[in-house]
Amino acid sequence: MGSYSKSNYNKVVRGAKRADYDKATINTIIDSHFICHIAYVYEGVAISIPTGYGRSGETIYLHGAMSNRMLKSLLAQNRVSLTITHMDGLVLARSVFHHSFNYRSVVVFGKPRLIAEPSEKNEALQVITENIIPGRWNEARVPNEVELKRTLVIALDVEEASAKVRAEGVNDEPEDHELDVWAGVLPLKMEKLTPVPEPDLKPSTEVSPSVVNYEI
Amino acid sequence: MGSYSKSNYNKVVRGAKRADYDKATINTIIDSHFICHIAYVYEGVAISIPTGYGRSGETIYLHGAMSNRMLKSLLAQNRVSLTITHMDGLVLARSVFHHSFNYRSVVVFGKPRLIAEPSEKNEALQVITENIIPGRWNEARVPNEVELKRTLVIALDVEEASAKVRAEGVNDEPEDHELDVWAGVLPLKMEKLTPVPEPDLKPSTEVSPSVVNYEI
Repeated sequence: MGSYSKSNYNKVVRGAKRADYDKATINTIIDSHFICHIAYVYEGVAISIPTGYGRSGETIYLHGAMSNRMLKSLLAQNRVSLTITHMDGLVLARSVFHHSFNYRSVVVFGKPRLIAEPSEKNEALQVITENIIPGRWNEARVPNEVELKRTLVIALDVEEASAKVRAEGVNDEPEDHELDVWAGVLPLKMEKLTPVPEPDLKPSTEVSPSVVNYEI
Repeated sequence: MGSYSKSNYNKVVRGAKRADYDKATINTIIDSHFICHIAYVYEGVAISIPTGYGRSGETIYLHGAMSNRMLKSLLAQNRVSLTITHMDGLVLARSVFHHSFNYRSVVVFGKPRLIAEPSEKNEALQVITENIIPGRWNEARVPNEVELKRTLVIALDVEEASAKVRAEGVNDEPEDHELDVWAGVLPLKMEKLTPVPEPDLKPSTEVSPSVVNYEI
């Protein structure tokens, strides 16, 4: 699958040894999450907004309501970026200075394009839905014509991307190893809790497989 | 404490009924997290990067290495924004169209300023550290003069902010209530796992209270 080439945009300057341009690594990080922060410029100020996404090949799909300011601003821009961040743990050193996080993050750059054709929109929405919760598309009622019209779908063809990963222990100064301070990693993980059914659910309706099998 | 006034920047356009400008609500969301996505413009493209933070009053502190491109870009800009996002659950409707997320997010706007004075830098680092893991500042070795010099600290005085919160069940179309599709909320929550001590930790060093008491 290869790697993304480095440019001024995607080149990791700070902490370059944690950088990765390998497409397989980047796609794995993208596919393990469902919320990205998409950055856009609004009246001269950069703003980032969380939103759901899904990936197909080297295209990332986003969607929202037709009135969505962020999505409309994106389409007016030639090049945008989105960021995906997994927070994996607190790295607790003996010194405050060497405290850090374990994380996996990706920044993706590309040109946004509007998806207008209904069947393409429908496919993009399936990609997004299946990325958020696999199996759900075939359980729920799929979008009808009116709903498709009310949904804005944007594709971002990935032109450049980089990953940054920290997945290790503490890097303390040698002279601090003698300190009687606990040092290590406190791992953090997003977990699913017990599903909360709608109060008006028909009593015969069992929890669907997508929920039972959901892994995050 | 009052509310932030609405401007073109912080006014929530889409889903305005989920918007909140109340300072107490906004501060609670800010204080319940420790990673924000800070947005900046680099060579004409908006980029957002995850970073730790802490709040004191109406100031948010950020820090990084002196060579940090993002932090240096921030200082060149008159107005920047940062976004804090809690993902609280998947809202699973009977129709794909009404799928949603439960979340709490805040976008903050302000002018960045460099903190150069060593004691002010030290205080800002304490605010950040204590926001990430309360009690840790007094357990670990605090920064020395050289470490302070190597650290770039930026304050963002909050000029405008808005929160957006969804914390409810499914809003399906009335005609879909008859469908035999499970609907409800799958709550998600960041959890701490078992701490992983450094292999070279002195055997007498017990897990510190900040780790034992850590709540996320």
